[in-house]
Amino acid sequence: REVYIVGAYETKHGILKDKTIRQMITEAGNGAIRDAGIDRKEIQALYMGNYNGNIFNRQNTMAALATTALGMQHAASMRVEGACASGGIAFRQGFMAVASGMYDAVMVMGVEKMNVPLDEVPLEEQLHGAQAGVDYIYEGGLGMNGSTMFALFANRHMYEYGTTRKQLAMVAEKNKYHGSLNPYAQKRKPVTLEKILKSPIIASPFSTQEVSLVSDGAAAVILTTKEKAKELRTDGKLVKVIGSGHGGGSFTVAVRESATSMPATVNAANEAFEMAGISREDIDVVECHDCFSFTEIMNIEDLGFVEKGKGGPFTEEGHTRLGGKLPVNTSGGLSAKGHPIGCTGTGQIVEMTFQLRDEAEDRQVKGAEFALTHVLGGPGAVSTVHILQRGE
Amino acid sequence: REVYIVGAYETKHGILKDKTIRQMITEAGNGAIRDAGIDRKEIQALYMGNYNGNIFNRQNTMAALATTALGMQHAASMRVEGACASGGIAFRQGFMAVASGMYDAVMVMGVEKMNVPLDEVPLEEQLHGAQAGVDYIYEGGLGMNGSTMFALFANRHMYEYGTTRKQLAMVAEKNKYHGSLNPYAQKRKPVTLEKILKSPIIASPFSTQEVSLVSDGAAAVILTTKEKAKELRTDGKLVKVIGSGHGGGSFTVAVRESATSMPATVNAANEAFEMAGISREDIDVVECHDCFSFTEIMNIEDLGFVEKGKGGPFTEEGHTRLGGKLPVNTSGGLSAKGHPIGCTGTGQIVEMTFQLRDEAEDRQVKGAEFALTHVLGGPGAVSTVHILQRGE
Repeated sequence: REVYIVGAYETKHGILKDKTIRQMITEAGNGAIRDAGIDRKEIQALYMGNYNGNIFNRQNTMAALATTALGMQHAASMRVEGACASGGIAFRQGFMAVASGMYDAVMVMGVEKMNVPLDEVPLEEQLHGAQAGVDYIYEGGLGMNGSTMFALFANRHMYEYGTTRKQLAMVAEKNKYHGSLNPYAQKRKPVTLEKILKSPIIASPFSTQEVSLVSDGAAAVILTTKEKAKELRTDGKLVKVIGSGHGGGSFTVAVRESATSMPATVNAANEAFEMAGISREDIDVVECHDCFSFTEIMNIEDLGFVEKGKGGPFTEEGHTRLGGKLPVNTSGGLSAKGHPIGCTGTGQIVEMTFQLRDEAEDRQVKGAEFALTHVLGGPGAVSTVHILQRGE
Repeated sequence: REVYIVGAYETKHGILKDKTIRQMITEAGNGAIRDAGIDRKEIQALYMGNYNGNIFNRQNTMAALATTALGMQHAASMRVEGACASGGIAFRQGFMAVASGMYDAVMVMGVEKMNVPLDEVPLEEQLHGAQAGVDYIYEGGLGMNGSTMFALFANRHMYEYGTTRKQLAMVAEKNKYHGSLNPYAQKRKPVTLEKILKSPIIASPFSTQEVSLVSDGAAAVILTTKEKAKELRTDGKLVKVIGSGHGGGSFTVAVRESATSMPATVNAANEAFEMAGISREDIDVVECHDCFSFTEIMNIEDLGFVEKGKGGPFTEEGHTRLGGKLPVNTSGGLSAKGHPIGCTGTGQIVEMTFQLRDEAEDRQVKGAEFALTHVLGGPGAVSTVHILQRGE
C-alpha cells in the first residue's frame, strides 16, 4: 500500500558541542512528531540509522534509547547499520514496514555525534571506529581508508574517461555554494574554485575542500498510510514515497570488477525506478552521496542521469547547480551540509521533503515534483535509492 | 505470503581462538546454503545480527563483509542491532521481507566473536563495548550493567512472588544438563544443583553458574516462499514461520513501571500468537533468553506459559526439563550453549529448526510440532518472539 511522509525534522548539522546524543535524538524526534501533528502513542516502531555510537558515544542500542527518551517505549525499536548508508537503509526498512501493512505509522531516525572530546574517547579508539566501515582484515587494518579508496576510483575514472581535476573541484564549489543557502548546513561560506584547487591535497586528487565533513546531526521522519496522512496534514502538504531500492556490491575493494562504477548504486536505482514507474527525466532534484567530490560524478552516472564517463562534463556545464537541468545536493551535500554518518541518509529525505513542500527557501527548486535520494555505504558495498513525489 | 526455513546451520559455540570472524561467517553462511541446496545467486538479501563487531573485531558493516565473503555481493545487506535481541530482530526483518513479497529468498545470519586477545583490543575498550547495551548516560556510565540490573529484577520477583534461590539455580542446572546433550554448546558438563548454589555470588542472587557465557559463534538460516521451499527440500523437511512479534519497553531501568515483567516480551508474544493463530498450549518446545537464571523464570511468565509469579514453582516441578510438559532451552540456552550476542537470536531459530526436523538427537523433543523462540535486548527494551511449525 501507499506510504506517505507526514513529518520531517533535522537538527542543524555541525560541531554540536553543547548537545549530548540524547538531546539530539529528542530534538529530532520531537520535531518530526510536532511537524506531523501525530500522537506519539500511534507510532508503532522506530528504525534508526547509527553507525558508531558505541565508540563515539559509548552507547549501543540507540533505537531503544530513543524510544524511551521520546516517551514511546511501547514502540518496536531497531538500529540498522550499513556504514554511510545506515540512514538510507533505516528509511527503507520503515517504508517496507508501512508498505507491507505490518505497521500503520513508524518513525525513521538517523543520528551520529562524531565530534567528541579526545579526553572522553581517545583518538585511537575514534580512528578504529571510523576505519571499521571498510574491510578490516584485508584492507582497513593495512591502512586503507575511505579517502585512499575513493582516490583510487577517481584516478581510474580520470584515466578512463578524461574526467578532470577541475570538474571534481566544481562539484565541491557547487555544493559549498548550495550549503551557503542552507540554514541546517555545517559550512555556510561559499569557497571559490581557485581556493579548492589550491588547497592541500589529502589523497590525490582530493584536496581538503573535496571531502565530507566530520559532523554531528540527527534527522527524523514519520511515515504512514495515505488515509492517515490526509487526516494529519490538513495543510495538504503531502509527500509520497514511490520508489525504494537497495543494492549490493563488493565490500572488499581488491575483488571489485570495476573501480569507476558501483553495481550497488546501479541496481538500487533500477529497483527504485521500476517501483516508481517514472523515468530519469522526471526527476527534478537529487541528493546523492558526495563523500568526495568525485563520488557525485560517479553517482550521477550510476544513477542513470548521464552516460558513464559524462558526469564530469555534465557538472562542468553547470547542469547540477541550482537553476540547472538537474540540481544535485541542494542541501550542500556531505561536503557542506555535513556527514553525520548514520544521519545522512535520513537527512537527505528531510531535505527532499522540504523541497517537495516548497519549504526549501533560498535553495528551493521551483515546482519540484519528483525527488531522488541516494547513499553509498562502505566503499560501494551498500546503496539505497528512494524516490519521492509531491503528494496529491 | 507464507515463509519457510529451508536451510539452517550454526558453528559450535565457544572460545573459537583459531577462527577469525570472517571464517565464522563463511562457515555459517556456506553451511546454511549447503543445507538448503540453494544457488547463492538466488539469495537477494542478507539480514545480519551483530552487536559489537566494531569494538571486538575492529569491523563494522559486517553484513556487507559477509555478502562479499560468501560470493553473494549482489545481495542487499544490512546489519541490525538491538543489544542481545539483535539476532532475533534480524530474523524478523528477513521474515518480513519474504512475507511482504519484497524478496523471494533471503539469508539471516547472527554472529559475534567476543573472545579476543587483550593485546589486540584492550580490556577497557572491550568493557566499554559490553556496557554500551544499557543506557550509558543515566545508568551504564555510573556502573550499572546487565548483571546488576537483572539482579535487581530477581530480588524484586523473589520479594513479590516468593521465588526462591533454589528455583533460580534449578534453571541453570537444567540448562547445563541440556547443554551437555548439545554438540554445538560451549559447556558440555552438567553441573549439580549443590555446586551452583555454592558457587561464588557475582551479583546477588546470581552465582557464577547462573549467568550467560562470553561466547563466539555464528548461525545462519535461509528463508523463502512455500513454492521454492518445496522445490528445494526434496526430503520434505519443511519448517514454516507462522508468527513474529517485536515488542518495546523502557531502555532506562529507572523509569520502568515494573521490575518483574517486561512489556516488550508480553507484547511480542501477543503479536506472534495472534499472527500464528495457535494457543500457548500448542507449543511443544521453547528457546528463551536465559541471560541469567532468573530471566528464564520471568520470561516463561511474560510469554504467557504460566501465570505471573508461577515461573519458579513450574521450574521446580520439572516441567521445563527435557521430557517435561514444556521443555525450555533444549540447546542449553545462554548459560550452557553460550551467548555470542548478535548470534543468539538466530541460533535459537537453528536449534528449533533441528527440533522440528527431528535432527536434535539426544535433546530431541519427540514429535515436536510447534516451537517458540524469544530474545530480550537491553534490560528489557526490545524483545522478539517467533513461532515455527513443522511443515507439511
